[in-house]
Amino acid sequence: MSHPIACPALRSRITDADSAAALIRPGETIATSGFTGSGYPKAVPQALARRMADRNAGEGPFRVNLWTGASTGPELDGALAAVDGIDQRLPYSSDPVAREKINRGEINYLDMHLSQVAPMAWEGVLGPLDTAIIEVTGIREDGALIPSSSVGNNKSWLDQARRVILEVNRWQNPAIEGMHDIYYGTRLPPDRVPIPLVRPDQRIGTPYFACDPDKIVAIVETDAPDRNLPFAAPDDTALAIAGHIIEFLTHEVARGRLPAALLPIQSGVGNIANAVLSGLIDAPFEPMTAFTEVIQDGMIDLLDAGKLRMASATAFSLSPHVAEKLNREMESYRDRMILRPQEMSNHPELVRRLGCIAMNGLIEADIYGNVNSTLVMGSRIQNGIGGSGDFARNAYVSIFMTPSTAKGGKISAIVPQVSHVDHIMQDVQVIVTEQGLADLRGLSPRQRAKVVIDRCAHPDYRALLEDYLLRAQSGSYGLHAASLPGEALSWHQRFMETGTMQQG
Amino acid sequence: MSHPIACPALRSRITDADSAAALIRPGETIATSGFTGSGYPKAVPQALARRMADRNAGEGPFRVNLWTGASTGPELDGALAAVDGIDQRLPYSSDPVAREKINRGEINYLDMHLSQVAPMAWEGVLGPLDTAIIEVTGIREDGALIPSSSVGNNKSWLDQARRVILEVNRWQNPAIEGMHDIYYGTRLPPDRVPIPLVRPDQRIGTPYFACDPDKIVAIVETDAPDRNLPFAAPDDTALAIAGHIIEFLTHEVARGRLPAALLPIQSGVGNIANAVLSGLIDAPFEPMTAFTEVIQDGMIDLLDAGKLRMASATAFSLSPHVAEKLNREMESYRDRMILRPQEMSNHPELVRRLGCIAMNGLIEADIYGNVNSTLVMGSRIQNGIGGSGDFARNAYVSIFMTPSTAKGGKISAIVPQVSHVDHIMQDVQVIVTEQGLADLRGLSPRQRAKVVIDRCAHPDYRALLEDYLLRAQSGSYGLHAASLPGEALSWHQRFMETGTMQQG
Ligand SMILES: CC(C)(COP(=O)(O)OP(=O)(O)OC[C@H]1O[C@@H](n2cnc3c(N)ncnc32)[C@H](O)[C@@H]1OP(=O)(O)O)[C@@H](O)C(=O)NCCC(=O)NCCS
Ligand SMILES: CC(C)(COP(=O)(O)OP(=O)(O)OC[C@H]1O[C@@H](n2cnc3c(N)ncnc32)[C@H](O)[C@@H]1OP(=O)(O)O)[C@@H](O)C(=O)NCCC(=O)NCCS
Repeated sequence: MSHPIACPALRSRITDADSAAALIRPGETIATSGFTGSGYPKAVPQALARRMADRNAGEGPFRVNLWTGASTGPELDGALAAVDGIDQRLPYSSDPVAREKINRGEINYLDMHLSQVAPMAWEGVLGPLDTAIIEVTGIREDGALIPSSSVGNNKSWLDQARRVILEVNRWQNPAIEGMHDIYYGTRLPPDRVPIPLVRPDQRIGTPYFACDPDKIVAIVETDAPDRNLPFAAPDDTALAIAGHIIEFLTHEVARGRLPAALLPIQSGVGNIANAVLSGLIDAPFEPMTAFTEVIQDGMIDLLDAGKLRMASATAFSLSPHVAEKLNREMESYRDRMILRPQEMSNHPELVRRLGCIAMNGLIEADIYGNVNSTLVMGSRIQNGIGGSGDFARNAYVSIFMTPSTAKGGKISAIVPQVSHVDHIMQDVQVIVTEQGLADLRGLSPRQRAKVVIDRCAHPDYRALLEDYLLRAQSGSYGLHAASLPGEALSWHQRFMETGTMQQG
Repeated sequence: MSHPIACPALRSRITDADSAAALIRPGETIATSGFTGSGYPKAVPQALARRMADRNAGEGPFRVNLWTGASTGPELDGALAAVDGIDQRLPYSSDPVAREKINRGEINYLDMHLSQVAPMAWEGVLGPLDTAIIEVTGIREDGALIPSSSVGNNKSWLDQARRVILEVNRWQNPAIEGMHDIYYGTRLPPDRVPIPLVRPDQRIGTPYFACDPDKIVAIVETDAPDRNLPFAAPDDTALAIAGHIIEFLTHEVARGRLPAALLPIQSGVGNIANAVLSGLIDAPFEPMTAFTEVIQDGMIDLLDAGKLRMASATAFSLSPHVAEKLNREMESYRDRMILRPQEMSNHPELVRRLGCIAMNGLIEADIYGNVNSTLVMGSRIQNGIGGSGDFARNAYVSIFMTPSTAKGGKISAIVPQVSHVDHIMQDVQVIVTEQGLADLRGLSPRQRAKVVIDRCAHPDYRALLEDYLLRAQSGSYGLHAASLPGEALSWHQRFMETGTMQQG
């Protein structure tokens, strides 16, 4: 394919970003491609932001509801947030500008399970969808769309939107064609049927999106790289966490509770998750597979090393230089990767069936193993729950990991009670910090508390936690999971007042 | 079948309860049948309790780990707890004697998602299983076991136990034969395959349990009714809640978001849930189906009225007089009910596929719609999470309901922050009290708080909640979900200190 837009009928819709953005009206709901910095539209949202800025200076507020796959790049979330152009945002965001506005109460942010976005949109409870803006790699002669570096909810947005704007990004290597697996078998109940996937490397759909050509109102050509953030190089903390996890998995294999090649791995977003993947290079498990949400640098390393046979996900989430490399060498990677709609990559049915080993980051955990992944001090959103709930509840083993402290030791990641819960104790089977690993399977809350404090807490906070637990065990209303409501969140209060959880 | 034990080879194993109980040793893990007061063994556990009492008086502690389907009856949970015979208990309990011991810290209680019990036992993380004690209705000539009034985890216990004790209960009407659907297609990953069920009335297994006859070490004959608890007659509060739910569902049908016969309903345990079912008799939806965990009185009423076409569950949970009636008229009900393993009745794959309408009770909800179903004042277990997480996260619509106050108004069921979380806000779409219904779908936390307070809180607590929210919105660390950690749990603390959440 020499020209990325091979369909003659659609070539007439080619226009510039400003003209495309001019089609969008204030108050609309727009849904875009984009998942953790890959495959999001790069030109039209910026043009829209310019319109918003102009109009906000003149006629009055121009805001839209913004639906995506997950987080996107600064040219989308950042640009629209900067001009106060977002009213409602779903289902996930990690953009610093948008985060600030959300935490000032200026954006209505719906933090959703990523597997549930498309089904809920189909159900009709999120309201009608006006405009979809979708980045693709190309358009085939028959009008089929070649997906880009993320799939996200694109299939559903293309189906549901009243009108569609496409961005055809020449930066994406055309050799990506064939990597995607777009499943068109979803329905609303009572017409849902089993999803026929039984292995991570199985294809159950087609490599293309279909889109009614009459809905395509504009096509904009771009040539811009995905803007991913670099990962931090693994430090001693990350290496220690990786070491504990590998030791645990090795032990599980030895006990016959996991196959020698493990079960499909899922790895969350963030630096620690990426470091653990890199650590698996030296582990004895092979050939591994991944059934996960995003493919990070660490997974590319594992593929390169031949430790990982294949990876199934919905998007790439790579450092800029790894994204460049992958894009350059797409041909050699294409057959070892499958990108699917996030409804499939994160589907509880599939996660449970395949028996994923889930490894996700956390903000804080409490002594009973309840996990907060989203709200710092119970109120300030960091990113969102993302797919962590889809995986943690349905995984074969659900592992959460974190450094034992944050902010230079001023915050303990292990607290008497989490200030917000994303993952209830039933969904948290293993907690790992650089201090050690707590295997909580089969333990009652009382037993869990002891193990979490002993294995995971930082020494600076261990005695404080023990002291709390001891007092709770005499002053608590019940002793199933002893707690002191008057004190349980005092560490957070202290941090808010004094800047540290340490006692003065 | 005249004699319930038609298999000649097995007749020789018939013995009395004391001899059977004598086979069990201290420290064993025993797994029994039983699910919400139906189908639990009634003789051997009492004999075991007598042995324990004797021995506790003499040689020293005789305790076992007790695994079941869910709660059982006083002859099992109650009897063993009364003699301090339970070390570890899973996955659910509602017995008052056992509850007291758990809340004194004397029993290690593992409160588990009911769909995950069998898979986790297979996975091997709960440890080995010594003795299964299973009530059945009869034994066929070929040795196949006819299940009783609950299925629970019986299939897995029979497969996994080293030895099996059967109780054959003549009280159960033999006409129950054929009602059950025992699916033998489960595997551990990587060998799991799609579960072929696409309609609540579909059969995918066999009506019988298989059991290696060599493992059957004793068979005890009993003739004792299931001991269910009566439901409270619906009061004005329950009727008001039912009214709000029916209005909501009617509205959803009118908007085309639900079919006229609804989607399969799931109804939780407890009085309110039962009252809502009874309320559905006068609602315009028919013919309904149920894909649920337990069949309560209200469902029998719906079946009798012809409003409910069929019900799929894992057990009965009936008032004594309704249980008698059902047992008497079993023949006429049999073809409109299917009892399945709880792994199937509660399976996330099936709940999501079928699109259940989940309706569960709660202890408290907070202004953002996080729900506590289990721990009074954050520490004292009431029952357990049961199947509520299996259904709430995967439902088409997830409804939680409660009176707006408890303990004669001294406790508000709507609080600034729940003292424990079982259902995160993402999994709570609708909250209903007698005051009104809050439809939280598509709302951000800030929007949710307003609706929850306005619609659901009791007038005595509404101003206090508004005041908290207002202050939180200026003093909070972030404004995504404003909260004041120093005060968020103060209502619970006040109740513990003064006996009421009302301010003095
Ligand atoms: C929880 C999560 C934020 C951790 O991310 P990470 O990159 O591994 O961890 P880091 O230690 O670098 O922490 C990220 C930030 O949170 C802050 N943080 C972490 N723990 C904290 C705590 N207990 N209190 C306050 N801040 C905390 C860090 O200081 C850092 O902030 P900074 O960027 O201002 O320095 C991340 O895993 C996440 O967003 N998870 C939710 C979504 C998810 O799990 N998706 C996977 C689905 S498949
Ligand atoms: C939450 C649950 C206890 C409510 O049960 P219910 O029978 O509908 O509700 P009730 O109002 O009768 O409450 C039951 C008890 O809890 C107490 N209670 C309820 N809310 C309370 C609160 N906020 N604080 C203190 N106690 C409370 C009631 O006072 C009552 O106690 P009592 O027996 O001493 O009078 C029950 O639904 C449950 O156990 N749920 C968890 C399991 C589940 O959902 N299973 C369904 C799965 S399919």
